[in-house]
Amino acid sequence: MTKTLAIGPYGEADRAALQTSFDPVFLSSPAEISGLEAARRAEVTAAAFMGHAAFGGAEMDLLPNLGLIANYGVGYDAIDVAAADARGLKVTNTPGVLNDDVADLAVAMLIMVGREMEQASAWARSGSWAQTGPYRLNRKISGGRAGIVGLGRIGREIADRLAAFKMEIHYFARAEKDTPGWTWHADPVSLAAVADYLIVALVGGAETEKFVSRKVIDALGPRGILVNISRGSTVDEPALLDALEDGRIAGAGLDVFLNEPNIDPRFYALENVVIQPHQGSGTVETRAAMGQLQRDNVAAFHDGRALITPVN
Amino acid sequence: MTKTLAIGPYGEADRAALQTSFDPVFLSSPAEISGLEAARRAEVTAAAFMGHAAFGGAEMDLLPNLGLIANYGVGYDAIDVAAADARGLKVTNTPGVLNDDVADLAVAMLIMVGREMEQASAWARSGSWAQTGPYRLNRKISGGRAGIVGLGRIGREIADRLAAFKMEIHYFARAEKDTPGWTWHADPVSLAAVADYLIVALVGGAETEKFVSRKVIDALGPRGILVNISRGSTVDEPALLDALEDGRIAGAGLDVFLNEPNIDPRFYALENVVIQPHQGSGTVETRAAMGQLQRDNVAAFHDGRALITPVN
Repeated sequence: MTKTLAIGPYGEADRAALQTSFDPVFLSSPAEISGLEAARRAEVTAAAFMGHAAFGGAEMDLLPNLGLIANYGVGYDAIDVAAADARGLKVTNTPGVLNDDVADLAVAMLIMVGREMEQASAWARSGSWAQTGPYRLNRKISGGRAGIVGLGRIGREIADRLAAFKMEIHYFARAEKDTPGWTWHADPVSLAAVADYLIVALVGGAETEKFVSRKVIDALGPRGILVNISRGSTVDEPALLDALEDGRIAGAGLDVFLNEPNIDPRFYALENVVIQPHQGSGTVETRAAMGQLQRDNVAAFHDGRALITPVN
Repeated sequence: MTKTLAIGPYGEADRAALQTSFDPVFLSSPAEISGLEAARRAEVTAAAFMGHAAFGGAEMDLLPNLGLIANYGVGYDAIDVAAADARGLKVTNTPGVLNDDVADLAVAMLIMVGREMEQASAWARSGSWAQTGPYRLNRKISGGRAGIVGLGRIGREIADRLAAFKMEIHYFARAEKDTPGWTWHADPVSLAAVADYLIVALVGGAETEKFVSRKVIDALGPRGILVNISRGSTVDEPALLDALEDGRIAGAGLDVFLNEPNIDPRFYALENVVIQPHQGSGTVETRAAMGQLQRDNVAAFHDGRALITPVN
């Protein structure tokens, strides 16, 4: 007797808050919807969804009275929005609240790669500092040229931070934007060619698949560092691995991977890569804000009020 | 038959440049000066000095015609400037050129500690991500309160960067400075009490020894993160270790240590510390600029021109 499904790997705090607000049926993934009785499925009007498992037309059709899929996260590429549109379903996400955290991680990964901070840490902890003298020199990060691929909310937060590191800011976006003197490139290859650091902040989904292509990676060149905080799908990952292995780019800082969490083991062999487990928005403060915004969207829907952050 | 000593662990590029410019006698440390014949020592008028071994009055007295000690680095606490003054010796350092690199490292260490980036990296690389699900949540860094201890050139570069992370900037300095709305604290305990993050950017030497005292560390509190890119001597290191071990502060990012490179092994047991091997200025670009500025000071001295960056 619930109108709400809560689907995904919710943590304790979110689970408790969902329970209090909606007394939902909890499922691990959209694949479990088919396990519910038809009568219960017919009661459901809203789904609070979290995670990267596919939520497609087939799952939607199992919920004949569904009206809303409220995504936990800004990226909703796991949800087939075209299928939702075709069925008159609304989709919401949680933009804004996670921009700072994701941008922080992007900036730190860039400096970590350039300044070899993970290697230097391991080297100091191994005792090599005392035994063999100073750590090898690495490269200056401030003052370089940053290329932001995708100047949405997160891309802009990254650019604002990098500007404070005295960087010249270049960006790709579908159209030129109003910026404080940053340089627009209509083409990601041209962007990569001028950039010392390429930071990918695209939305996910079919439209941006392998947007950072082999050609873009080649244009970035042997001094180039690539940072990806968007989705693994936006980068041609085999091409990236080839370039990293061959030294055709200098390094990478990656929070997202194509088959995460089962990431390509070729990454493990690379010293010039900082690997993060898709934790861009993974802070207590931000996840609390994301959960609240998701629940606010579900509550608005149930109450017949306007959705707060609709995506369709 | 040289007027110049080059003392310290110079790298190849600097060594070659010193050779070309001054044909100096190379020594590993000031302790080796006494090994030179008196006649050679009497020829020396300038010393190009690098490193952290003490250069005191005893060493100066072995060089009766010495007029300049040109330090490689902005921190010249290894040189006894009072002893130099007493002998009419000039000292120069290499300010300005290394500010960006040191500030970059400070910011990255702060984010690395708060976002547990080293732990998350090790965890992802160990396969735990695939086996046990998302990495645990950590804490938001942007938007916190930064306390900069010492608002000199480097402190200001750090503050400028942290302001782009939407932080409220507080600082200690001997006198209030002209800043874009930052808050001055006359007392480091008051600064630590309001700060989420305490970033130490003091000069080294006797005057600042244990300036970040046990009391300051206690005022920082259990949510506090300490970052030190100045000198190990500026922090009461046993007090810091106690606080880290007891969880009385949240964590630390340290590029400098009291007995570096033989750092206290208690640090190795701590997960909430990012250890860097005093590599703040350790980039190819910056070290080249530091070496050039040192040589320019030595050349100016030999030519009877005004010193470029004198400290006394």
